[in-house]
Amino acid sequence: MKNEGTLIVLSGFAGSGKGTLVKRLLADYNQYALSISMTTRMPRPGEEHGKSYFFVTKEEFQRTIDRDGLLEYACYCDNFYGTPKAYVEEQLAEGKDVILEIEVQGALQIKEKFPKTLLLFVTPPSAQELKARLVGRGTETEEVINKRMRRASEEAKCMPLYDYIIVNDDLEECVKNTHCIIQASHSTPDRVSKLIDNLKEELSSFSEGE
Amino acid sequence: MKNEGTLIVLSGFAGSGKGTLVKRLLADYNQYALSISMTTRMPRPGEEHGKSYFFVTKEEFQRTIDRDGLLEYACYCDNFYGTPKAYVEEQLAEGKDVILEIEVQGALQIKEKFPKTLLLFVTPPSAQELKARLVGRGTETEEVINKRMRRASEEAKCMPLYDYIIVNDDLEECVKNTHCIIQASHSTPDRVSKLIDNLKEELSSFSEGE
Repeated sequence: MKNEGTLIVLSGFAGSGKGTLVKRLLADYNQYALSISMTTRMPRPGEEHGKSYFFVTKEEFQRTIDRDGLLEYACYCDNFYGTPKAYVEEQLAEGKDVILEIEVQGALQIKEKFPKTLLLFVTPPSAQELKARLVGRGTETEEVINKRMRRASEEAKCMPLYDYIIVNDDLEECVKNTHCIIQASHSTPDRVSKLIDNLKEELSSFSEGE
Repeated sequence: MKNEGTLIVLSGFAGSGKGTLVKRLLADYNQYALSISMTTRMPRPGEEHGKSYFFVTKEEFQRTIDRDGLLEYACYCDNFYGTPKAYVEEQLAEGKDVILEIEVQGALQIKEKFPKTLLLFVTPPSAQELKARLVGRGTETEEVINKRMRRASEEAKCMPLYDYIIVNDDLEECVKNTHCIIQASHSTPDRVSKLIDNLKEELSSFSEGE
């Protein structure tokens, strides 16, 4: 029987490079599966159903909530976003470490329901660097950039509630470091409880034999 | 200023290979320092003062206890064993991760006093394998081996209190895995609290600007 995988919730500031980090984890290691969110918003050009998101109507979304089919959900700008439960549970049972890329409130919701979840927060080394990256994209207006920085300011307040803070300075380092943190999660006593139980049982025969 | 290192307490069954593991960590990576215990027992052939142990008299040991100079201490077979505080604190301040190889009771004592301590427990994959290793040494009588197995049975009860369980099956894997677990400990929010505080402060200017 396979050991169950780890549920990993990854959050981070817009501009932290968390999207690239997730892509690299999926490409470099065989142990990860990416959870795909469900949303009621319209697909943007290039977005594919079942790949970027599961695009559904508000009625379908409501039905999924009603049958307890979501790990978490939230509403932004009149659109719903949620994490379908079935796929995540399936992959964990297969021994895959499942990555959810979601924002702070959803992340904390999941941790409350599933305390074994590994909460990772990705950040550039400084706010200055964060702004430089957003400006460097060259695609956002100053207004949008300032809005993102204000949002980052709110999100930063929740950083101490995460299990690990991933500083994304050098990407290669960051990928290895994140993989290391996730690997470590496989060695906690609750994750190797079967091994401990077996050892205890086998060893007890030596006490009894005397 | 350097980030403070991690205090690592490593325990494990006799025959788990923890001694070899510690030697390899020290040899393979530059970030580790080994804490040297103080004891009132007589040196065995080949043991050097200040290398294997600090060999002291019972009076010297008592004086060290009196001036709160030990992180933990315990008595076995009429001999005292303890961990001198000064060297550990010095190395941690230098940014080194300090490894203490001590038994279960001392380990739990330290965790209680210093909750940030990383408690690692080293075990072979099974009790059968543990016995095979002890027998394989060819240096111990059956009586000693059975005594060790009984002791292992007692120690196994404390495994769930450790932070991580290190299964020493393949040594190379085990060294890498242990290093990974220790590395991960550098990324918890309390270990990067300065970075979080700086980010919060820098980012708050964006909120105030509005």
